[in-house]
Amino acid sequence: MHRGEPPATGRADPAPYRALRRPAGARHLEAIDQRALPHAVVTVRIGDTDVAAMAIRNMWVRGAPLIGAVGAYGLAMGLDRDPSDAGIARAHAALDATRPTAVNLRWALDRVRRTVAPLPPSERADAAWREADAIATEDVEINRTIGEHGLKLLERIASRGAGPINVMTHCNAGALATCGWGTATAPIFLAHARGMPVHVWVSETRPRLQGANLTAWELAQRGVPHTIIVDAACAALMRRKDVDVVFVGADRVARNGDVCNKIGTYDKALAARDNGVPFYVALPSPSFDPSLADGDAIPIESRSADEVLEVMGRDEYGHATRVDIAPQNSRALNPAFDVTPARLVTGLLTERGVATPSEAGLASLFPERFA
Amino acid sequence: MHRGEPPATGRADPAPYRALRRPAGARHLEAIDQRALPHAVVTVRIGDTDVAAMAIRNMWVRGAPLIGAVGAYGLAMGLDRDPSDAGIARAHAALDATRPTAVNLRWALDRVRRTVAPLPPSERADAAWREADAIATEDVEINRTIGEHGLKLLERIASRGAGPINVMTHCNAGALATCGWGTATAPIFLAHARGMPVHVWVSETRPRLQGANLTAWELAQRGVPHTIIVDAACAALMRRKDVDVVFVGADRVARNGDVCNKIGTYDKALAARDNGVPFYVALPSPSFDPSLADGDAIPIESRSADEVLEVMGRDEYGHATRVDIAPQNSRALNPAFDVTPARLVTGLLTERGVATPSEAGLASLFPERFA
Repeated sequence: MHRGEPPATGRADPAPYRALRRPAGARHLEAIDQRALPHAVVTVRIGDTDVAAMAIRNMWVRGAPLIGAVGAYGLAMGLDRDPSDAGIARAHAALDATRPTAVNLRWALDRVRRTVAPLPPSERADAAWREADAIATEDVEINRTIGEHGLKLLERIASRGAGPINVMTHCNAGALATCGWGTATAPIFLAHARGMPVHVWVSETRPRLQGANLTAWELAQRGVPHTIIVDAACAALMRRKDVDVVFVGADRVARNGDVCNKIGTYDKALAARDNGVPFYVALPSPSFDPSLADGDAIPIESRSADEVLEVMGRDEYGHATRVDIAPQNSRALNPAFDVTPARLVTGLLTERGVATPSEAGLASLFPERFA
Repeated sequence: MHRGEPPATGRADPAPYRALRRPAGARHLEAIDQRALPHAVVTVRIGDTDVAAMAIRNMWVRGAPLIGAVGAYGLAMGLDRDPSDAGIARAHAALDATRPTAVNLRWALDRVRRTVAPLPPSERADAAWREADAIATEDVEINRTIGEHGLKLLERIASRGAGPINVMTHCNAGALATCGWGTATAPIFLAHARGMPVHVWVSETRPRLQGANLTAWELAQRGVPHTIIVDAACAALMRRKDVDVVFVGADRVARNGDVCNKIGTYDKALAARDNGVPFYVALPSPSFDPSLADGDAIPIESRSADEVLEVMGRDEYGHATRVDIAPQNSRALNPAFDVTPARLVTGLLTERGVATPSEAGLASLFPERFA
């Protein structure tokens, strides 16, 4: 839990790691530097707005809900230094400029700003820290309820056959992407904790390998059976009937239910449709953006070509090493996200239940967002 | 060209590299060790059956047509040592056991065996070398005619719009996979040689990176503009309308037109269908296997998990280095090929023209194969 200790409700994720901690009473964060995983577990201190912005931009922390929380805390850190209107604006702008696709970052920054703007400057910083805490706490509960709704789906699948349920996921929508259980992984973690046999197909997720580096590491930490595959093997496994259900996360979902998520999500949705495999997107409501009519309006981050042309791994001495994989003068393109049309999505797994991926479906669960 | 010198017809691939050479009069081969590309160009000598088998199994040479030719020569090398019936059987078995999916290997081995079996042992080795030469020579011509038929498709696309044609390919179905122009790349190389502006999207092709390592290298050698992308980005590029046509190779095509090719081909076919992008499979007739009713009967090679868990690249000193990308105890699965149902294929690009991907379509171009 973000304040160092799990709450007494017993509803907190019991895992032995946390993406983010706010030590009790501290005005800084301790975060796992996710660039080092799975080769080493390195904790970094995030103590001011600029470091928070750098942590988000350079992906020390990543995942839509997590960068929302780090953004909120980063804004609070900015107000510790300068609580004026100009200070709010400066910190907000610095954090908001880091990554364009996930809507959680803007949502969290706006929420903190809205909370503190009416207050006298002397009260703003404390209020910002409280609001950031609230965002982090709510995220844990959103994760858990998404997990409970997803668990019901897994139970229904389990009732139809013998043997472990084979869940496929992509990228990392795990505890490392959130303040708690993860989103797409929450049903898996709950199922495993309750003794349901489950096996996870982990799509490695080039270029940054969040599947092989982060999701596989989380599953290993928790003892969940899993197998890593290359991204291009997912469709073949579905055709072989080796996949019961797909759970992925979302960086932003448009008003019509189109899903923007890690590059390669759309491919999996197409393969799932062609093979009759249910395809669910875990959607915490802060990742829903009813202001955009459809997925084509979502800004897609284009990242450095070097991420494609290089791979980070452990050399024979156990040291993290970067290797070049392509001819020296070849170019690369690196769109970080893609859009999966709503028509390919079986359901949106939200904290309020499973929504039909359409404006009507989302409006029925989140009427206040359509006001 | 396989005998060291291009023939005088001007129809040979003019590229400055050859996957395979038989030096004039020699009883051995010189091959590019494709494991070292693109970081170094290393030539290996293949002088007996065991080395030929090792070269195929360990992928010093790869690509359905190329392993057919190396297999044929490897059998000839076996007959140089032991031209008895038992010698034929031993060499045939050793080579045939190396890789199961591409049908060209078995086809070439059977063809050489059929040619030499009726002869007295003293004449078998020379006849085998001649037959292997014929297979290699025919492959170059098959490549070229596939290229001419594919070029017509590119010209039709070019006539519809301005700017370079964007061709997407997967894995390496290039000159490095054949004795000549390549199969899927032949139309591209011909188009570029004739001044048609063309740009190639190179799908990196995890786990062994034949796209980033081999296809990108070939395109760079020939000066063809290209951009490397991760496998998972292909669908998104099609959705963005950045792809005019997809050309891929085939390791084996069944009687009904189902295509077995490098893992990830099926994904691209699904994305092409969803976005109205023409999807062509280059099919040299030796890769066609009318004995199998459909693609589900094709044996899919499962390769070492290490290929998924490790990546080979160039370190900062320019040395080839292998790095581990996953947690130490995570498992991986590595199916090397997938099956694309015929219904997703726009056309099969053969040396006799474009076949409809169906039994009727194939029978109309290759009636003798259905006898």
